[in-house]
Amino acid sequence: MKAFVTGAAGFIGSNLVDRLLAAGHQVTGFDNLSTGFRRFLEGALANSRFRLVEGDLTDAAAVTDAMAGADFVFHLAANRDLPSCPEHPRSDLEQNTIVTWNVLEAMRATGARRIAFASTSSVYGEPSIVPTPEDAPFPVQTSLYGAAKVAAEGMINAYVTAFGFQAYIFRFGPVMGERCTHGSVVDFYRQLIAHPERLDLPADGRQWESCLYVQDLIDAILLAAERCTLALNVFNLGPDEDCQVPSIGADGGPCLLLDCARMRSLGWKPRLAIAEGVNRTLEFLRENPWLLEARR
Amino acid sequence: MKAFVTGAAGFIGSNLVDRLLAAGHQVTGFDNLSTGFRRFLEGALANSRFRLVEGDLTDAAAVTDAMAGADFVFHLAANRDLPSCPEHPRSDLEQNTIVTWNVLEAMRATGARRIAFASTSSVYGEPSIVPTPEDAPFPVQTSLYGAAKVAAEGMINAYVTAFGFQAYIFRFGPVMGERCTHGSVVDFYRQLIAHPERLDLPADGRQWESCLYVQDLIDAILLAAERCTLALNVFNLGPDEDCQVPSIGADGGPCLLLDCARMRSLGWKPRLAIAEGVNRTLEFLRENPWLLEARR
Repeated sequence: MKAFVTGAAGFIGSNLVDRLLAAGHQVTGFDNLSTGFRRFLEGALANSRFRLVEGDLTDAAAVTDAMAGADFVFHLAANRDLPSCPEHPRSDLEQNTIVTWNVLEAMRATGARRIAFASTSSVYGEPSIVPTPEDAPFPVQTSLYGAAKVAAEGMINAYVTAFGFQAYIFRFGPVMGERCTHGSVVDFYRQLIAHPERLDLPADGRQWESCLYVQDLIDAILLAAERCTLALNVFNLGPDEDCQVPSIGADGGPCLLLDCARMRSLGWKPRLAIAEGVNRTLEFLRENPWLLEARR
Repeated sequence: MKAFVTGAAGFIGSNLVDRLLAAGHQVTGFDNLSTGFRRFLEGALANSRFRLVEGDLTDAAAVTDAMAGADFVFHLAANRDLPSCPEHPRSDLEQNTIVTWNVLEAMRATGARRIAFASTSSVYGEPSIVPTPEDAPFPVQTSLYGAAKVAAEGMINAYVTAFGFQAYIFRFGPVMGERCTHGSVVDFYRQLIAHPERLDLPADGRQWESCLYVQDLIDAILLAAERCTLALNVFNLGPDEDCQVPSIGADGGPCLLLDCARMRSLGWKPRLAIAEGVNRTLEFLRENPWLLEARR
């Protein structure tokens, strides 16, 4: 395949690029390097089948130019789910919704017809059914991030119907592993360096975290793209177990647990236990102190 | 209340303005007159409690200026659900999604906290449950129009959570009545003037139309706004019966029928039979030949 990867210099994107190259594909990476690192693509950049285009997805012409010749778009670039987003609500609309429209239009212009999209378990809001299946009741969005992602999903759906696209939508929660730059594991590691005697747990009610190892996530994406021939394919992706960070209060906070039976029916199964994924993440952080410096 | 009505010069908007004025409220109408008619507001413009601001919702500063002092926003302005929209996909994103974000930000800036939003039954795509309730399974969008409206709904949901807004979301299909400017009734009337011996039925599979009379729609909106005190209130709105336009083919085409039990539990019931609503629409069209001229 001739792959086009948005967010190619990010945590998940750079790991996906490496996997696609290892499988013999041609890959164009697109990234504005605002939160990604060129250093994550050192291996890829040494491969003649890889090309990195530095550009911004808000620049529709730049995306279209860079995409020429690609047949499969992996759209991973996104505005992260940050607690501070209510102060900058436009960033979710811009970076998650409008840029997805730019990607879809670039596909329409260049003839690329297959898209894999990194959605989020946040699209379920506070689900009434746990574990939550893909066809859970019509969700109520509780975050600007979830709203922007569900908007992007809807546009992708519509392009499937209107323009004959084939789409793979993956809804997942926190991901960990090599090149992980944020999230609970990174935060806890950072804290224990700063004050080894104390660990502050998040006060925003996210006492539960159910992390998926990045290579298991990529296994699922590649397997679905290979096996699923429907026009629209929507999958939850989550770990085998759920890993509870000890609760501070009695209420325990919300627990978002995905029902991943649909993906598992394809034969997918996370290969790494959560504890092992945490260990690999920590090992990577220990070996790459520059990362915490860069994100201080 | 101090109401702010977007799309105030449109079919539903101008009827809502008249009802709000008749109930003693202060009303600011906002419309770019691209598809609305100043003539629909002749009565309103004679009322000292009404003010019309000509402006475009894509102009965030203009919306914010015009909204100052309002406490309840009725957001009716939209890009219509046109079959030609796949040729202009940006219009749905722009006119339905981005302008809704502008409206929400204007509310945040001005202090208005209550919003009623005209969504659509199209957000259900091709529902697996008919009649379709508000909590039907997570929908797959089949139109750019539906995708843009579900995106707007999601943003409104998120603003309810993030900024303490109170929202009323109404999902409805075709509406008819006085000042109706498009849809099956208008199309059939126009056809029968052009060629009284022949009626061409739509070939796009929309052989069923389930029209709601505009005053019944407005009854529901005002009743919900008066009675419902939850932060987020989502209602389907549809007619009592479903009115089948005779099918051309054997397949009958898709039938979208809404389950309106939630709204009915508030005591709402359409007052007009569909046939009577059609008659009133035709009567209005006969008395206002200028309208068909303007929309030729």
